Amino acid sequence: MTLRIGILVFPGVQQLDLTGPYEVFASAPGTKVELVWKSLEPVTTATGLVLTPDLTFADAPQFDVVCVPGGGGVNALLADAETLDFLRRQAAGARYVTSVCTGSLVLGAAGLLRGKKATTHWNAVDFLPAFGAIPVEARVVRDGTLFTAGGVTSGIDFALVVVAELIGETEARVVQLALEYAPAPPFGDGTPKTAAPEILAAAKAAMAGSRTERERLLAGA
Amino acid sequence: MTLRIGILVFPGVQQLDLTGPYEVFASAPGTKVELVWKSLEPVTTATGLVLTPDLTFADAPQFDVVCVPGGGGVNALLADAETLDFLRRQAAGARYVTSVCTGSLVLGAAGLLRGKKATTHWNAVDFLPAFGAIPVEARVVRDGTLFTAGGVTSGIDFALVVVAELIGETEARVVQLALEYAPAPPFGDGTPKTAAPEILAAAKAAMAGSRTERERLLAGA
Repeated sequence: MTLRIGILVFPGVQQLDLTGPYEVFASAPGTKVELVWKSLEPVTTATGLVLTPDLTFADAPQFDVVCVPGGGGVNALLADAETLDFLRRQAAGARYVTSVCTGSLVLGAAGLLRGKKATTHWNAVDFLPAFGAIPVEARVVRDGTLFTAGGVTSGIDFALVVVAELIGETEARVVQLALEYAPAPPFGDGTPKTAAPEILAAAKAAMAGSRTERERLLAGA
Repeated sequence: MTLRIGILVFPGVQQLDLTGPYEVFASAPGTKVELVWKSLEPVTTATGLVLTPDLTFADAPQFDVVCVPGGGGVNALLADAETLDFLRRQAAGARYVTSVCTGSLVLGAAGLLRGKKATTHWNAVDFLPAFGAIPVEARVVRDGTLFTAGGVTSGIDFALVVVAELIGETEARVVQLALEYAPAPPFGDGTPKTAAPEILAAAKAAMAGSRTERERLLAGA
């Protein structure tokens, strides 16, 4: 039986939130990974890469796993009834509902995080309570059949955990080796806790525009 | 001044070899990252994701950095004169010539690794001497203005190293934090040296088809 994994794609998605888990899921045996959006027109991601949806909301089957990546484009989805309705419908029948980075804010806006432990990008964790979620700072957070991942590259760790859960630990370990995932980050600044203060300040400044807009949108939520 | 980074895209590319470095490069200030191929038609990657080239070989400017990702589709490029000529022309004027995973075999086929230290995916390191390269097992290998990365996910480490070199260490550290790159691989099997024997055997079996074809192609090189 093929495991069908549907990943939401949208304008302004952070492509590595999507492409990291995609590669892990698609490298595991017995999976079919598809990008789903309102139309089949190619979309431009936050940093310029163009991705092409495989299915529309209307044509999508019930996925076994639904995954929402994050990025600046998340802001436009927080009050987008068509997308939120699609996610609610999928969530009702999916084995696992998942997100990477600020994708969890979209799950929250769809009402799918109420009373659940969840995570997101470090620069957005404080938004989670607005959706009734219990924020947890970790790269992968599980609450029952809900899996949420931290910022961007957390999606790779997350997807390996999900493959181990859904398919098997051996299969997940084989994928990890095939993708040569023995990371060696060149610097120690991967989280706000370990980052030098001036690096943290610069990263916050770089993301300030998107965050300010998000604060405004969520103040009305 | 904008730093122009051209990444080769081709049918059967391992998308994470490309999308990991793309996200790192494109998140750094003052860069323009573009996908280049023979035509602008969308191409299907090794695991199914569709990517769209931004430029053709004919329209490409002289890039500051040229990057060749790997994947099963590499095999078709090893004797592809149009692609190898393009890479040789770019390499002659680029500040840095780079590859991720088995992309280094394409650089090798273009004659760009002779006498140079280089790396590739762990399952392809033994092919490097056929191109006159000196194989090194590491995630990022530098020889002058040549940077080669190990398998797939090594591309993220590699791109951060290149951003630090080309733009600055502060900028690279800010990107690492923005991408929350403090990886936590769920298993210890990321390299053949650390993998359990049965996991290594299974990974080799999964990649045997592409490797056998490569052995045949390179036997005639």
